[in-house]
Amino acid sequence: MRKLITIAALLAATPAHPQASANVAAGRAQPSPLAPSEIVNAAPKDDWMAIPPSDLLVMDLAPDAKDKPRRVVIQLMPAPFSQGWVSNIRKLAAAKFWDGTSINRVQDNYVVQWGDANAEDKTKARKLPGDLAVVLQANYSSRLGKQEVVYSLQSAHPLGQDFITDGAGSKTRWYPIHPSRDAYAEGTAILAGWPIAVAPRATATDKELELSGWPVHCYGMVGVGRDMPPNTGTGAELYAVIGHAPRHLDRNIALVGRVIEGIEHLSSLPRGTGALGFYETPEERTAIVSIRIGSEVSGLPAYEYLSTESESFARYADAHANRRDAFFIRPAGGADICNIPVPVRRAK
Amino acid sequence: MRKLITIAALLAATPAHPQASANVAAGRAQPSPLAPSEIVNAAPKDDWMAIPPSDLLVMDLAPDAKDKPRRVVIQLMPAPFSQGWVSNIRKLAAAKFWDGTSINRVQDNYVVQWGDANAEDKTKARKLPGDLAVVLQANYSSRLGKQEVVYSLQSAHPLGQDFITDGAGSKTRWYPIHPSRDAYAEGTAILAGWPIAVAPRATATDKELELSGWPVHCYGMVGVGRDMPPNTGTGAELYAVIGHAPRHLDRNIALVGRVIEGIEHLSSLPRGTGALGFYETPEERTAIVSIRIGSEVSGLPAYEYLSTESESFARYADAHANRRDAFFIRPAGGADICNIPVPVRRAK
Repeated sequence: MRKLITIAALLAATPAHPQASANVAAGRAQPSPLAPSEIVNAAPKDDWMAIPPSDLLVMDLAPDAKDKPRRVVIQLMPAPFSQGWVSNIRKLAAAKFWDGTSINRVQDNYVVQWGDANAEDKTKARKLPGDLAVVLQANYSSRLGKQEVVYSLQSAHPLGQDFITDGAGSKTRWYPIHPSRDAYAEGTAILAGWPIAVAPRATATDKELELSGWPVHCYGMVGVGRDMPPNTGTGAELYAVIGHAPRHLDRNIALVGRVIEGIEHLSSLPRGTGALGFYETPEERTAIVSIRIGSEVSGLPAYEYLSTESESFARYADAHANRRDAFFIRPAGGADICNIPVPVRRAK
Repeated sequence: MRKLITIAALLAATPAHPQASANVAAGRAQPSPLAPSEIVNAAPKDDWMAIPPSDLLVMDLAPDAKDKPRRVVIQLMPAPFSQGWVSNIRKLAAAKFWDGTSINRVQDNYVVQWGDANAEDKTKARKLPGDLAVVLQANYSSRLGKQEVVYSLQSAHPLGQDFITDGAGSKTRWYPIHPSRDAYAEGTAILAGWPIAVAPRATATDKELELSGWPVHCYGMVGVGRDMPPNTGTGAELYAVIGHAPRHLDRNIALVGRVIEGIEHLSSLPRGTGALGFYETPEERTAIVSIRIGSEVSGLPAYEYLSTESESFARYADAHANRRDAFFIRPAGGADICNIPVPVRRAK
């Protein structure tokens, strides 16, 4: 029997013991002895969703010491999240703002940051396009819709697919993950291919919740550098996460995308020795040749992600939370949102 | 009023809303506008605990392309955790087993692994010292003592110091962190300077719990490579975590220490392009000149860690969970165990 309940009720119903809840989760997604990567490899073609090239940001760095090309491909954040900054980033790419800028900061277990190294020096700073929006802090999170959160109360599964319905009545299947077991938010989920955190607010009727959500700082996520608040940054200064998820940044800085290919060209850069990992000399910086929207890049491969509404994804997430392949002796019975990365690949 | 309660009861009592619980936590550790690093810098000398050189493992890699030395300093895991493997590692270092071996695997957002690259080839493999112990899987976790978990029921603080008492009646102050908000374990804590996860088991009396615990796979932790179970590895093959905490490995592989200096010499290495990040050619490997116990290394600096029983640490952990310094607009109200790294530094 499916029943409408609040997230608060779900929290109370969630089993306290990860080991116990693993069995509950198994009732939804069939247990599999396959490793997560094997499940991804076996996923049928229809489970993969094309990523439009117009939603990609392609950063070409100067070749490495062995003259090998270094390309980093970023998927931009979809609506309803961070669209003011994403719009600015499209304008900056169109204006070729980043061509000739550099990677200026590499802080171990934290972030790689790039942009105009002279941004703080008014006499040397590059001119920003004139039409960039000033985005308000309120946009760090987004309304997901006045909606019902429909859970199966009896199973109270910590992993499982369900639906949210937006204000227009459109249904989206989503993937709540351990709603009660996140240290940073009341709930986490994977929605339309992206890891998010959620907060419910009561509405006039007790059968509906107003749900807001925001993207979370997992490994590889790309965010917008900014000055002190209320400044929110324009998007001209960007960073990628290269360490343990710095979730304390959630809702304090805008997230605008994620690296889907070439993260190693960022994560393996020499760490900066200045404060916060900034390079101390210009020579240490890595030059950025160009940053373009994917639809402007000729010969770019097609990319696709594993639909987070597919049964393959359900099995993949379950396998992350419960490793049953031969190497493991003890399934964890859970996984945090950042340890269930959405699979992305070049289209086959 | 302090009262003896079970962890299960505490779970039920923990506030569901991180924002709300932030205020509760503030009742224990005074709110501070300082950033965590500033709190560490301001900690009095007495809050720092010396790390004996005999508990260090010093790995010297071949110099880098610019002929700069590369030293990685590892602190070995203290009792009661993983001592069978740690003992093996001491024997391997004494036998100079690793001198002339190499770093063979660098997998992005996962691990760097080192040891004898020919270990799988019986005709070429190095001879292991004859007196290495075969350690059982049961040693992936340890009994922490038949003990009382004493929490303050009224505050039900998600962050706060408390005590555990071992079988001999010896009290240790520890630092439980968000017992109800970890996706992998019933509880997490920082105990004697180390991040651990815990599981309680009921005893004959309902006033006592048998508490077992195990170290967790945070960034920089060092573990023991192994073959398929029931093999548990000897300690000859080691890895360090260089990405988001792979907590699914907890209790599936032994953890024997953590990198306290020089992690950047591992985390910034080129990623291997073979399966699992193994290098495909011997030339790509980084040579290990030597690995020694710290007490055998002349001129080694003294290291110390911030006592996790100190008030400074309480403030530091609270500040991680509730960033109140000027850059932040929204404290998270929580932090996961791996986002509260125990501060370690060269002694001043």
